Order: sequence, then structure tokens, then C-alpha cells
Amino acid sequence: MAEVELKRGLRDVYFDNTESSNVIGDIGRLIYRGYDIHDLAEKSTFEETVYLMMHGQLPTQAELDAFDSTMRSSRAIPQEVIDIITSIKQGHPMDVLRTALSALSSFEPDVDDVSHEGTLRKGIKIAAQAPTIVAAHHRIRSGDKPLDPDPSLNHAGNFLYMLLGEKPDEDTSRLMDKDLIVHLDHGSNASSFAARVTASTLADIHGAVVTGVSTLKGPLHGGAAEGVMKMALEIGEEGNVEAYLAGKRERRERIMGFGHAVYRAEDPRARHLREGSRELANKKGQPHWFEILSKVEEHMRPYAERGICVNVDFWSGSVYYLLGIPEDLFISIFAVARVPGYVVQVLEQQDKNILLRPLLNYVGPTDLEYVPIANRG
Amino acid sequence: MAEVELKRGLRDVYFDNTESSNVIGDIGRLIYRGYDIHDLAEKSTFEETVYLMMHGQLPTQAELDAFDSTMRSSRAIPQEVIDIITSIKQGHPMDVLRTALSALSSFEPDVDDVSHEGTLRKGIKIAAQAPTIVAAHHRIRSGDKPLDPDPSLNHAGNFLYMLLGEKPDEDTSRLMDKDLIVHLDHGSNASSFAARVTASTLADIHGAVVTGVSTLKGPLHGGAAEGVMKMALEIGEEGNVEAYLAGKRERRERIMGFGHAVYRAEDPRARHLREGSRELANKKGQPHWFEILSKVEEHMRPYAERGICVNVDFWSGSVYYLLGIPEDLFISIFAVARVPGYVVQVLEQQDKNILLRPLLNYVGPTDLEYVPIANRG
Repeated sequence: MAEVELKRGLRDVYFDNTESSNVIGDIGRLIYRGYDIHDLAEKSTFEETVYLMMHGQLPTQAELDAFDSTMRSSRAIPQEVIDIITSIKQGHPMDVLRTALSALSSFEPDVDDVSHEGTLRKGIKIAAQAPTIVAAHHRIRSGDKPLDPDPSLNHAGNFLYMLLGEKPDEDTSRLMDKDLIVHLDHGSNASSFAARVTASTLADIHGAVVTGVSTLKGPLHGGAAEGVMKMALEIGEEGNVEAYLAGKRERRERIMGFGHAVYRAEDPRARHLREGSRELANKKGQPHWFEILSKVEEHMRPYAERGICVNVDFWSGSVYYLLGIPEDLFISIFAVARVPGYVVQVLEQQDKNILLRPLLNYVGPTDLEYVPIANRG
Repeated sequence: MAEVELKRGLRDVYFDNTESSNVIGDIGRLIYRGYDIHDLAEKSTFEETVYLMMHGQLPTQAELDAFDSTMRSSRAIPQEVIDIITSIKQGHPMDVLRTALSALSSFEPDVDDVSHEGTLRKGIKIAAQAPTIVAAHHRIRSGDKPLDPDPSLNHAGNFLYMLLGEKPDEDTSRLMDKDLIVHLDHGSNASSFAARVTASTLADIHGAVVTGVSTLKGPLHGGAAEGVMKMALEIGEEGNVEAYLAGKRERRERIMGFGHAVYRAEDPRARHLREGSRELANKKGQPHWFEILSKVEEHMRPYAERGICVNVDFWSGSVYYLLGIPEDLFISIFAVARVPGYVVQVLEQQDKNILLRPLLNYVGPTDLEYVPIANRG
């Protein structure tokens, strides 16, 4: 048999063109549909950015109003799905999210419609429902009743309200909005790729999103936000930073929140959450968390020359912590932001579909003789 | 920017070595761990073949007994999952299977264990539970009570018993056993690949299997077994075959159950189900279904020279139909067979893991100016 060339991990293999997002790793830029993430984080909203990603261009006011109104009116989930969440409330939040999203398909009459319009319509609904699931699960496992979505609040504000039980102030809501914007899409990430593989068989959007959530849960993908805050808690106060990092270096342990598979410069998403984390820490009367993390970042600066820079998880973890969100929900927040990103990539996949199926190179034996069980040693 | 080489669909790209299964398309051979599928279909059992695939070699009698006993004692699913199935009983069987498998993760204390041993232990359990879910759903949606698994029956026999409500005779049980053997694994198929992508992030086996089932549902993957039997029913009797096929040719419509992405010769799995279909049709007093399909196969023989040969779906559909299984369950039977195949491929992926993440080539704009919404046209 001829020698085959292996592309393990599919490294450096381009599987398609895209017009949705672009990660320019060497200079630390992230582009959504032509727009710089900094412009979108500072000037846009999550709803507008989701519209941009799904439709390919920024909406007019009338288009945004209609889209926003559809999102707001799509947030509720059937009582049956609340009951499902209740019956598995002890599960990991990502497992519960995956199960509930999967269950929602049984309440869609046109579940198998894989037309562009069908996927878009169902995809918007799933994106609107995902925060409701995460919040309902957290309330139920905490012994509280899930809260109905509040249509007077925007997507980010309503998510915080349903999760934490009180309406967030303007700044807090805006910070979560930014967090969702910067996590929405990120080029050819593993979970969006997996969602595309599912969609490439002409499976429907519920299945593709379920695949995305299944894949995002993996520790190599779902982020280190949880680990960063654990580190800050271990450090405890600013004065301990230097000794803590020296100990880590000595034991050759990794410092969470630094380095990225693609970025060789500062992760452009980190900037917005750093600023938000600083303001939030002050407002909450806990400025030391920000100071500890700032000091860690400062001490790590020499590694930037080698391309090990601060990433988005470094600052998102502290934002979630300061908001009072438990650590095991950090990946679920990522998922709430990324679900519409899956819809965007699935739409692109379906519009010029080709089955995504690379090859495996068989290196085992071929002509083994089947020996009856009585004669096996 | 330099021109990049696109590998759309990842065609002809080898993403890794494998020792589990090999599809030799040009001569129509299927190999599991070195053994020809014909030997396994004729001489082995599903339980033994699953052991072979998961452990890499055929078991001794003692090893098989222990493995079989574990499978038999792992079939039950928690009442909570029965209740979940009941609450979404109107859904497509594959959506219900996906949801219930996903829910099972919340009842596993070591859900996040991705060690070889952990994945194997949980994977065997999932493989044992999958038929229980499919059968329970079908009973519940038909207004019947789900049946408890019967530990005196083997995997295939118990599946038929739980699904159809009566213990199958030896021949019928053996036919389903063969059907499950030939569907267990199939090289780098789209759903096993998707399961590997999920596992490559170090997500757990429940998530990877859920991804596999999500992907298998797609019409480009989950098979045409449903379509073949619809065709036979449309044809109605042997004498109509020629006119029916002539009409199809005239309208340039595809004949279901012929042609395969990889096989250019007869699908080696078809042989075993053809023989079983013939015997079953006689036993059920409905030999005309076999005769109609045989005649279709005969008329299609000239296309074999162009590599369009009969595939496994052509004969599996008639087997399921003759067993009294409704058409919308055909893919679920495929899934019951393939779930342990996902476990096999996930184990292989985890044992020498590398994140599976190919690249997308961004071809959109990059420096668009963010125009305030009031100024958009």
C-alpha cells in the first residue's frame, strides 16, 4: 500500500472558505463580517452583532427592531423542558444545557427543515432559548423557582436577571453584553467545526447545536476562565503574587489564562473584559481581585515576547466571579454566546454544503483467521 | 495574502491512523480489527464483535462471559430518563435517542472521567442502554408500557423483545444480531469523525456519543433503508418492477439503496441481509417483498460496471419492515449498532489525542467602518 501523508489534528488544512469571522493570530485581531471586534464591543450590541453575523450586514433600525423583537418573544421554553431540567438538575450545567437543547427539537414542528430560512428561524429561537435553560437550571438546582424571561430587558440583561434574580444595572448589563459579543464566534474553532460536520450530513440545526455544545464542554476548548479565578483565590492578596508565580515556575506548572492556540499577540477580546473587570471590582468593593490579576498580568509580560499573552479567559473569569456566578457555569456563559455562532457557521455550511469526511489510514492487520472461541488461548 | 489550498469536504485528507476498521472500497471488503466482516457476520456474535472492537482482540470464553454479563446488567435506564422520553414522545426517534443519551450523563458520577478505563466502562454501559431507549420510546409513543430488559436474552434478542413485545425466535434474533454486527463500525464515517472531534477537546464519552447520534441523523449519512422499503411498497408487485424503474430513469430519479461513497463493488454487508431477508419473507408468508427487491437488484446489475452497486440499506430496510418495525425507527436501529462503534473510535482518539481543528480561509472584508445605526441606508 502506498505511503499516505497524515495530517494529524488536520493541522494547516483549510477545509473551506468563510465570510463570517477571522482570527488574525499574529497581530491579535478578531474580525466579524469585516468589522473589528473592538468597534463591535464598544459601539454595537449583542443583538445587533448576532444580526450582523446571521445576515451578513449591519441592520437598519427597522431590521434590528424586528430581529430584537423576535429574539425577545422566543425566549420561553416549554414546561416539559423545565421538567426535564428539574429531573437532571444534579448534572453538570453543560450536560443539562445539551440535554435541554436536544429536547427542544421535539417541540419544533419543522425540526427537519434544513432550508436556509428554516435553519435561520429555528437558529434564532435556539439562541434566544439557551440563556433561559442555563438560568432555569441554576435556579432549580439552587432550590429557587425559574424566572420567566422579562421582555423589557435585552438579551444580556435578561440572562443576568433570570440567572441571579435581580435586574442588573445598566453598566453590568452592558458588560455582559460585551462579554457575549466577544465570545460569539471565533473562526474555525473545534465546536463550530463539529457543528458543521453534523450539519454536513443535512442533519438539522438542533442536532448541530447539540454537537457544538457537546464539543465546547471539553477542557481543551471550553476555556480556562474557571482556573483563572481559582488561581486568584489561591493567591488571596496582591503581595503574594510574586511568590505564587515563582512557585508555579519552579514546579513548571502552567499559569491559567495565558497563551492561545492561534493568538501570538494579546487576545483582542481580553481588553474589553479587563476594563469591565476593573470597574466591576471597584463597584463591588472588591478592588483587590482586579489588583491581583493585574499584577499577575504584569509579571507575565516578559512571556509576551515568546507569544504567550493574556487571553480572554483571564479576564472573563473575574467578571463572572464578581457578578456572583458560580464557577461551574463559566463554560455555559461561553455557550450562551457561542450558540448563535454555531447557527452562523451551520448556515454557511448548508449554503454550499459538502459532506465533511476526511479519511483514516488503516494500519492494522487484514487477513486474520477467525479462530473458534474454544480454541483461543 | 498567499493563496491557500482548499480541501473542501476534507476529501482525500488522512487525519490519523486507525487499527479499528477498514473499508476497502474498490474490492468491497470491510475489515474489523483484521477480521473479514463475512467471518464475523457468520461466525461471531454482536457481543463478541463489540468486545473485539473495544479491546482489539477476540475474547476467550471467560472474557466474553464477563463482558456479556456486564452488558446484560447495564441495560436499564433510570425512571427519570423514562419520564423524559415520555415527555418528548412526539419527537423523531433519533431526537429522542439523542436527548435520552444526553440525559444519562447526569446519572453518571464519573461523567468527566476521560481515562481509557473510564471511557470504556461508560461506553459499554451506553452501548447497553441505547436499545432500551429506542424500545422504550417506541412503546410509550404507541401507548404501551416500556418493557424491562430481559437478562436471559442476548443484546439483539432483548432489543427485539423490548421493541416488539415478544421474544423473537432463534433465527430472527440471529438476523438482528448480524444486522448489528455489520453496522457496528465503518472506517472514517461522518458521525464517528464528529464524535472524535468532540472527544478531541477532552469532552467525555456521553458528549461524543451524542454528537455521533446528532450527525448520523442527517439524510446524507443515516442511510436510505427507509426509502428502499417505500420504493418496494410503491412497486407493489414483481410484475411492476420494470415499468417502475423505467419511469425512474426517465425522470432521472435516484434508485434508493444503490451506490455508496466508498464502495465501487458490492457492499459486503448487503450479502448477509439479503439472505436474511429472503428467509424472513418466506417465514412471514410475504415472499413477494423479497422477490420485488431481488428483481430491482437484478435490473440494476448493469450499473455495477460503473461502480453503482447494491448497498447495505437496500436489504436492511426489508428486514426491518418484515419484522414489523416502523420506518422512522430504521435510523435508530443503525444508531443502536453504531453507538459502540463511536466508543471504539473515541477510545482510539483519546489514546493518542490531538485536537481536531482544521482551518477556514477567510475571504470576507477586513476593514469595514462601523456606521452608527441612524446613518445606515
